[in-house]
Amino acid sequence: MAVRVVGFDGDDTLWHSETRFHVTQGEFRDLLKRHVPDADIDARLAEMEMANLSIYGYGVKSFTLSMLETAIELTGARIPASDLEVILGWGKRMLMQPTELLPGVEETLRLLATGHDLVLITKGDLFDQESKLARSGLGDLFLGVEILSEKNTDTYRGVFRRRGIDPAGFVMVGNSLRSDVVPVVAAGGRAVHIPYEVTWEHERVPEDQLPTDGWLRIERIAELPEVLESL
Amino acid sequence: MAVRVVGFDGDDTLWHSETRFHVTQGEFRDLLKRHVPDADIDARLAEMEMANLSIYGYGVKSFTLSMLETAIELTGARIPASDLEVILGWGKRMLMQPTELLPGVEETLRLLATGHDLVLITKGDLFDQESKLARSGLGDLFLGVEILSEKNTDTYRGVFRRRGIDPAGFVMVGNSLRSDVVPVVAAGGRAVHIPYEVTWEHERVPEDQLPTDGWLRIERIAELPEVLESL
Repeated sequence: MAVRVVGFDGDDTLWHSETRFHVTQGEFRDLLKRHVPDADIDARLAEMEMANLSIYGYGVKSFTLSMLETAIELTGARIPASDLEVILGWGKRMLMQPTELLPGVEETLRLLATGHDLVLITKGDLFDQESKLARSGLGDLFLGVEILSEKNTDTYRGVFRRRGIDPAGFVMVGNSLRSDVVPVVAAGGRAVHIPYEVTWEHERVPEDQLPTDGWLRIERIAELPEVLESL
Repeated sequence: MAVRVVGFDGDDTLWHSETRFHVTQGEFRDLLKRHVPDADIDARLAEMEMANLSIYGYGVKSFTLSMLETAIELTGARIPASDLEVILGWGKRMLMQPTELLPGVEETLRLLATGHDLVLITKGDLFDQESKLARSGLGDLFLGVEILSEKNTDTYRGVFRRRGIDPAGFVMVGNSLRSDVVPVVAAGGRAVHIPYEVTWEHERVPEDQLPTDGWLRIERIAELPEVLESL
């Protein structure tokens, strides 16, 4: 069946996101090293984020709160408030940074929008994601926006139901095997995986848990129009 | 025209929310008084929340980050990290508290759901709101859930368009004149205002900016079925 609706992930598919978390995490590591030179700061922050995921969900505000908690815990609450103020400032900086599109995104979306319905399907913080889309200049190309608290087979089925989308004519495009490929194929759709330069540990999937067909991988978004023709 | 679709606000309309912010804010005041006995803590926190609204949006995580920033700023960064850890804990406690329904909510919704489509229309943090709805036990009564980053005439029109709702057959029920009444009437719908015991300053509307008709006020949600009949 021909592709009618194309779903796009936002973070690290249309615009840079994870590199910003990495930059901030590097600054966080440098700041904490001055207080606790022997601690495995990255490991402790990753554990904290996972432990807090069911309370905070995804996004920059959650990440900021987990950095603060990690800093207090690792230093035995000896870190000065002025350092915690610096961490609060990093969170604000991340939320206010201009949306930086990946190469080829705008041209590719303009081309695809003429023959397909485009829907942005992201997870994370509602306010932050809407703000990023508004600043991206791409808002008008999307027929709709779905911000999900989690991307799994049930939540994709919810999107299909709400929007009257036939999964057989739907392709999801994203950088995460776990969020953009596996659950979409399980829900009867197809997927195109475009790896990003950095993958968050939490989003990785063992090779043997990947579906055998219904998806393919390309190197860059500019290849997408040709691939959609061939599907 | 008869009422077909009833939209419900969540916080302080179906379940308690603002009282929890008030309780936490009281604890915050007591904690900071020990460091800065002469400061107007409530006023400074309210200013901080407003200044951060365009960066953080609404919700508990935003409130927690603003409390932390206020505490650091008001004490000239002299507050110990152990006190900031206590504030972080309050945020988590608020996010994990069971959803406490207002009196009459469950019976009224069950009654109305037999003759109307019910849609939950809230603002705030996506993850927190979905979590509250799931814990409320009311999820199955709603045909749909709309979580908006802001409630204004444009965002209500977006809900009508997405869901094919005729505004003439739509009634919004909520505790906020600013978010649940004024923009809905302006978008061609009707509204029922149910005041809550506490109103956040930001949600207040001067009497002369209220629409002259298209809405009415009741004391408690149990009056709603009768009022909808009479509309």
